[in-house]
Amino acid sequence: MLDSRTSSAERTLGYSAIMEESAPRPGRSTFAWLVGASQLLGVASVVLTGVWMGHYRGGFAWDGSGLEFNVHPLCMVLGLVFLQGDAILVYRVFRNEAKRNVKVLHGIIHLLALIISIVGTVAVFDFHRASKIPNMYSLHSWCGMATLVLFSIQWVMGLLFFLFPVASSWLRAMYLPIHVFGGLVLLVMAIGSSLLGITEKLLFSIMPTYSQFTSEGVLANTLGILLVGFGVLLGYLITKEEFRRPPNPEEEALSVHFKTLTEGGSPTTP
Amino acid sequence: MLDSRTSSAERTLGYSAIMEESAPRPGRSTFAWLVGASQLLGVASVVLTGVWMGHYRGGFAWDGSGLEFNVHPLCMVLGLVFLQGDAILVYRVFRNEAKRNVKVLHGIIHLLALIISIVGTVAVFDFHRASKIPNMYSLHSWCGMATLVLFSIQWVMGLLFFLFPVASSWLRAMYLPIHVFGGLVLLVMAIGSSLLGITEKLLFSIMPTYSQFTSEGVLANTLGILLVGFGVLLGYLITKEEFRRPPNPEEEALSVHFKTLTEGGSPTTP
Repeated sequence: MLDSRTSSAERTLGYSAIMEESAPRPGRSTFAWLVGASQLLGVASVVLTGVWMGHYRGGFAWDGSGLEFNVHPLCMVLGLVFLQGDAILVYRVFRNEAKRNVKVLHGIIHLLALIISIVGTVAVFDFHRASKIPNMYSLHSWCGMATLVLFSIQWVMGLLFFLFPVASSWLRAMYLPIHVFGGLVLLVMAIGSSLLGITEKLLFSIMPTYSQFTSEGVLANTLGILLVGFGVLLGYLITKEEFRRPPNPEEEALSVHFKTLTEGGSPTTP
Repeated sequence: MLDSRTSSAERTLGYSAIMEESAPRPGRSTFAWLVGASQLLGVASVVLTGVWMGHYRGGFAWDGSGLEFNVHPLCMVLGLVFLQGDAILVYRVFRNEAKRNVKVLHGIIHLLALIISIVGTVAVFDFHRASKIPNMYSLHSWCGMATLVLFSIQWVMGLLFFLFPVASSWLRAMYLPIHVFGGLVLLVMAIGSSLLGITEKLLFSIMPTYSQFTSEGVLANTLGILLVGFGVLLGYLITKEEFRRPPNPEEEALSVHFKTLTEGGSPTTP
């Protein structure tokens, strides 16, 4: 969304196309720092979820008990937030690599995210079943399930449209902006659902002491803020024109015929 | 973020610049429908919040009781979500009006949003004081307060940079993309904070019956989903290149000298 405005700002600042081509772009080090910060926030979020569930909530198990529930937050933060975010980010981090390799990496990380998220979802349904707790009544469950279902659809559509292009290039061009916008919406929805989950879990388990700034409450709140920070940084890195993959018509043509190219042999680069 | 891809898709589809100028653009009716849908979702969200607080939670008052608390959700959904969203949307809806008029409208709606949000925040602090409930311990309060403070800063910065341009055009060009990105982040944060507030309120007031799909719970969950829908539609309308204000260098020059122009007399158009 910032594209033409940024370009206009850059023109105002007097950057020429030649300067951008020959000299290191001023955004390069900013980009590296922002990616580093996003990874720090992402890893910290996963670690904090692990500490919360492992230390304050008694650890992990797969036995229908509250310890099985504990698998749920960890899997969702790792899969649907951190890995989903990083799967999107590969298009920015590896923007000078061959596009089809980046595309495969994008699909694989998303597949990993999908599998881990499904394990996390099974964990909470299994815990509910064993503890006779109804399913799907809360706003967290509505938002979370919507995110997971739409994420699965988005993954299958991406596979069909872009990795095994059964769709015409016309349809692919139509779908691409929806896929890109949908990806960012799903990341935001995953983060929002996580925050709802944090609030639910805190009120179910420590409601009497939460208002006394108990360490568990502060830790879980901090986790929420880190997740918001991860989302904001990812959103910035993804939408900023300067950080985008430069268009390459030759590569685009190759990409359209990726199916044909790969049917005959293995890719030339790992 | 969808800019160059959309344009590329449009080129693929064979739109020419001439066609875009002379014939009605195919995106026009889609735009109108999406704006209509967003307004429907926005108004429905405000109405549902009113029904929830007015019918299920006993109505409104300003007496330190739970009825004063009820002012809080209504003000926040009206101010920080609906009005903030619409203040952003004026740049798309009135994209053929004089830019400085749209800018003033943008500032006024945001000011209204800010005032209503402050009233809503005072309501909950006042209720907490009267009921001896601690402040600022929950994730909802952390996210909500961060949103309100950043929103206030964003409003003041916007006023200084763009309405009374005390900043140089260089600084303004630097700040504009941050202002635009920040605005969308703040809208998303406001919606996220609202969802956290919905979850908190439900668990505080109807925890024993929430899991039995009681009508209040379903209504509040539905409100949450409407707010998410409002956010997704607004995000799409704001970021889609096709719906953007066409750049106009002459107008930009006028806009930079808006202060000078308006010092001597009243604007020529209402």
